[in-house]
Amino acid sequence: MAAWGKRLAGVRGVLLDISGVLYDGGEDGGTPIPGSVEAVARLKRSQLKVRFCTNDSQKSRRELVGLLQRQGFDISEGEVTSPAPATSLILKERGLRPHLLIHDGVRSEFDQIDTSNPNCVVIADAGEGFSYQNMNKAFRVLMDLEKPVLISLGKGRYYKETSGLMLDVGAYMKALEYACGIEAEVVGKPSPEYFQSALKEMGVEAHEAIMIGDDIVGDVGGAQRCGMRALQVRTGKFRPSDEQHPEVKADGYVDNLAEAVDLLLQHAIK
Amino acid sequence: MAAWGKRLAGVRGVLLDISGVLYDGGEDGGTPIPGSVEAVARLKRSQLKVRFCTNDSQKSRRELVGLLQRQGFDISEGEVTSPAPATSLILKERGLRPHLLIHDGVRSEFDQIDTSNPNCVVIADAGEGFSYQNMNKAFRVLMDLEKPVLISLGKGRYYKETSGLMLDVGAYMKALEYACGIEAEVVGKPSPEYFQSALKEMGVEAHEAIMIGDDIVGDVGGAQRCGMRALQVRTGKFRPSDEQHPEVKADGYVDNLAEAVDLLLQHAIK
Repeated sequence: MAAWGKRLAGVRGVLLDISGVLYDGGEDGGTPIPGSVEAVARLKRSQLKVRFCTNDSQKSRRELVGLLQRQGFDISEGEVTSPAPATSLILKERGLRPHLLIHDGVRSEFDQIDTSNPNCVVIADAGEGFSYQNMNKAFRVLMDLEKPVLISLGKGRYYKETSGLMLDVGAYMKALEYACGIEAEVVGKPSPEYFQSALKEMGVEAHEAIMIGDDIVGDVGGAQRCGMRALQVRTGKFRPSDEQHPEVKADGYVDNLAEAVDLLLQHAIK
Repeated sequence: MAAWGKRLAGVRGVLLDISGVLYDGGEDGGTPIPGSVEAVARLKRSQLKVRFCTNDSQKSRRELVGLLQRQGFDISEGEVTSPAPATSLILKERGLRPHLLIHDGVRSEFDQIDTSNPNCVVIADAGEGFSYQNMNKAFRVLMDLEKPVLISLGKGRYYKETSGLMLDVGAYMKALEYACGIEAEVVGKPSPEYFQSALKEMGVEAHEAIMIGDDIVGDVGGAQRCGMRALQVRTGKFRPSDEQHPEVKADGYVDNLAEAVDLLLQHAIK
């Protein structure tokens, strides 16, 4: 593999995944990954532009940012691209009235949305809300529509909490896709539109940007398909087999965000 | 379409799906589909061989047959091919110790199976048992295995109960397949091995057999791929759009089992 200097040359902006990179989630709010609080602070003191790009769909952006601030992270709502506000915008633009299969924590993002007489289903990481009964309700709404529209906030396979691996929204999206014979629209990584909106908000071109994430497919593969570079951290949901993934090869693998920032500050900025 | 005489010529054996053809299920045990009790009796009085081939994985074979007998059907355990006993046999043959994500009603079929220290996951139509917690348990067992083995009792998309459409095991199989990046082994329709075992038990060759079912893909398409003929009934989960299915065309569509039996008795037997 080429030297780090070559691999990181010309990077001007950094997109950071949140869960598994900044902190490991959990019912207690989770805990920062060692070195990450300081790593974010060092990045923000540098000349590099920074933006946070998450698929978290359990919490409102306000709640997520509050939780991270309490853990010591320098982060504000305006710096975060997250799928719920992006979906809310799409629903308004297209006049869609969703049946919401979502976590209560993110419901406030849809306060302004008409949910009467639904003409689509929005699915997010509902956690315990993914009961058989709730899945059936969403399924029946879709089957009653002439042209079923299913919008999924991300399509992650699983994530890691302090208690262990947890199924993510993507698994339940696949269940509904299969049962209804349809394909969902994904708002979140690895959708190219989603990465592009984050790049636009950061004011950096794809070829000048690098994604740092723990998901080899959703973060690394998705960012690369948009023309960005991408590093995978060996924290969060990382598994050793990711480094031999049959389809996706990161531009580099690092132990954690602290190491990624060390390398960026050393090699990206000349 | 060719005349019925041509389409049904040479049929010697009939495979009958159960749910949606004989009866519509429900929490109260369900109700027979009008005309089906008598239609089964007429078939059994004819020269045609008859076997029942179900994907029901919520109930033990004993429980299912008892329920049908109480509704007036002439049916015995030995005439039924169902996925749970078939799976139990496979587990024994391969020395597999399953983690069971199944309905309590079918648990007795696995009484003789060692479930300690599981080295595979068996998923069936667990109904309300498909909680987030139970899905996560099964997911974690699979992720802890070096070579994850997932066995699914059928891969139906949904079925119809008196209260409405219900998600079937296939949807949850797809969720686990996607989350783990694996492919399940299916025991049940439309698996060719499963149809073939039913044909063998009936003692009829595929080209002499006809399947009657309400599922255009699982019953009709599956049987046709095995060289059988297949009729779809307009009962159970049948939807009008099935008659314009992009990939599967039944050898005939009939209003219900009674009409199918009328046609068979008139045209199959000369």
